[in-house]
Amino acid sequence: MDRPVPSALQLHVSRWFNTPKPIALDELRGKVVAVHTFQMLCPACVAHGLPQAMRLREAFSADQLAVIGLHTVFEHHPVMGPDALQAFIHEYQLRFPIGVDEADPHGTVPRTMAAWGLRGTPSLVLLDRYGQARLSHFGRIDDLTLGAVVGQLLERPYQPEVMADEHVRDGRCDGDACHP
Amino acid sequence: MDRPVPSALQLHVSRWFNTPKPIALDELRGKVVAVHTFQMLCPACVAHGLPQAMRLREAFSADQLAVIGLHTVFEHHPVMGPDALQAFIHEYQLRFPIGVDEADPHGTVPRTMAAWGLRGTPSLVLLDRYGQARLSHFGRIDDLTLGAVVGQLLERPYQPEVMADEHVRDGRCDGDACHP
Amino acid sequence: MDRPVPSALQLHVSRWFNTPKPIALDELRGKVVAVHTFQMLCPACVAHGLPQAMRLREAFSADQLAVIGLHTVFEHHPVMGPDALQAFIHEYQLRFPIGVDEADPHGTVPRTMAAWGLRGTPSLVLLDRYGQARLSHFGRIDDLTLGAVVGQLLERPYQPEVMADEHVRDGRCDGDACHP
Amino acid sequence: MDRPVPSALQLHVSRWFNTPKPIALDELRGKVVAVHTFQMLCPACVAHGLPQAMRLREAFSADQLAVIGLHTVFEHHPVMGPDALQAFIHEYQLRFPIGVDEADPHGTVPRTMAAWGLRGTPSLVLLDRYGQARLSHFGRIDDLTLGAVVGQLLERPYQPEVMADEHVRDGRCDGDACHP
Repeated sequence: MDRPVPSALQLHVSRWFNTPKPIALDELRGKVVAVHTFQMLCPACVAHGLPQAMRLREAFSADQLAVIGLHTVFEHHPVMGPDALQAFIHEYQLRFPIGVDEADPHGTVPRTMAAWGLRGTPSLVLLDRYGQARLSHFGRIDDLTLGAVVGQLLERPYQPEVMADEHVRDGRCDGDACHP
Repeated sequence: MDRPVPSALQLHVSRWFNTPKPIALDELRGKVVAVHTFQMLCPACVAHGLPQAMRLREAFSADQLAVIGLHTVFEHHPVMGPDALQAFIHEYQLRFPIGVDEADPHGTVPRTMAAWGLRGTPSLVLLDRYGQARLSHFGRIDDLTLGAVVGQLLERPYQPEVMADEHVRDGRCDGDACHP
Repeated sequence: MDRPVPSALQLHVSRWFNTPKPIALDELRGKVVAVHTFQMLCPACVAHGLPQAMRLREAFSADQLAVIGLHTVFEHHPVMGPDALQAFIHEYQLRFPIGVDEADPHGTVPRTMAAWGLRGTPSLVLLDRYGQARLSHFGRIDDLTLGAVVGQLLERPYQPEVMADEHVRDGRCDGDACHP
Repeated sequence: MDRPVPSALQLHVSRWFNTPKPIALDELRGKVVAVHTFQMLCPACVAHGLPQAMRLREAFSADQLAVIGLHTVFEHHPVMGPDALQAFIHEYQLRFPIGVDEADPHGTVPRTMAAWGLRGTPSLVLLDRYGQARLSHFGRIDDLTLGAVVGQLLERPYQPEVMADEHVRDGRCDGDACHP
């Protein structure tokens, strides 16, 4: 993992697209979650990150893997607002839920991006079925490597009750703890 | 040619980027000119058209071939204004001159796009050394075919004086007339 | 899995390249094994299968994943002999061990290909750490999907003793049996 | 041009594929000719050169451009004989005429390759309508640049009688001489 990501991840989203209601990561327990962070004017996001997010969406069942986009605008704010993003989503035919990372009134980096310690766009964060970040990757990642991490996370058994206890005891779930 | 293009082509541009002063097609007599029309939120423009324009710029000498971008916004106007385009040009590192096609107060299609009869984006228009449109292509065109047309136009001898007479006589230069 | 593959897989190889000694699948217990079957004159093998095998080799540790090529010649036999293969391996700079599937004196399909029920080239067979086939895919497979299967197989715990018992009892290890 | 190519080019071919009768360059006067030299076990030929030759064949009319393959084997001779090439042509579905460059009993480099001064494979040689070499390129060449040279050669007027005189006088046609 490029950098440690805090244990209790939350999305701070000011507006959602492609979903009838806001998404909370808590509600996705039991699924592996891929959060793809991007900016609509970031060439590497358009060329590599977003197409990979679309491939993720197609390669795995929505019951097993949730794919979420997060528009983490940290530059060119005036021209990457929600209306611009909406046109972008429409033209690029993005189908998965996409949230606008909430602006920080005191800085240029939006709230989720700051809280998760992300370095730029594109960044991909993978959460296991317990909501723990298992991968946080800035830049390009190849499909074989990404697929392997998703496969590993999908393979781990999900036992919510045991997990709850682990959480109370440890404050953080590490790899072994999830595999009784 | 997909559609006939009027003989006396002019650019109607409200703002220029990447050039110290406005460009008039008249001043480019003697060079072959490639005008690449695009919209910054058009996926095919970003994936195919603009990279091809950059390859054109690299493959030929600026003395022989002028490459000009034209932002022909006909949809999502509020989010594809000059400021958004400026950020786009910066992020995609586009180096050739790019003009904003002048908005038509009475319609959604900008003035140059309408006058030239272009059907959408991306469109590529090639002018010969006399400023006559020799190719107007909507959509994707492969590099071999495009290279061949550029090569043909570069090969034709340029004799401005003769041409002037032709123009007076014919009102339009056809293929044979340019080859005394 | 495209077709059932027999439980006790063995390689029938008449000649090896890129390995100091013959490889038996039995010796690879504890590793996930990818067997990429190809023919040197098969365009899809050259364009997709072999580059993917090379990416597999690079993306995973040799301690975790063994990558083996198998030259399963079922056509054009006279021009795809071991000498031709050797030149091919040299020119394409293939680094992983490659075996020549043993010819069947009574048929055109070589022995391993026949015994494993493979339909053509390229075919990819993935064995888990116990040597059981978990994927047998004919044709192209995308990296995300392949990576996910490798990741799942890598994630499953390896307990040789328990496994031995399972084998005795069941004659074949199924998915659940490998996860006590 | 990478290296000077002799003026009077001839093919030395021991066997032809994909043509009812042998091809002599003399018979192709009036057409631009692309001779793509390759070896079937040369990775760059398979990945870049031959696909480009196929694109050339599709992008231009056979009346205007002749595309010829030449198998210039200078290594691994025993496994790149005509039978191996025939299987290769079949599997890769190559449709244009392909000749086997005649072996030199005294050396490893075949006769046409030696006579034309080619450095390796892939090499592409372009002849104008008069049979004069106008491009000899070793390695990869991009489609735009190649297309432009083909376009230039196609544009030049073909006047066989005048040309004959030029030949007698000069022994070699240069760029200007072909444009009376």
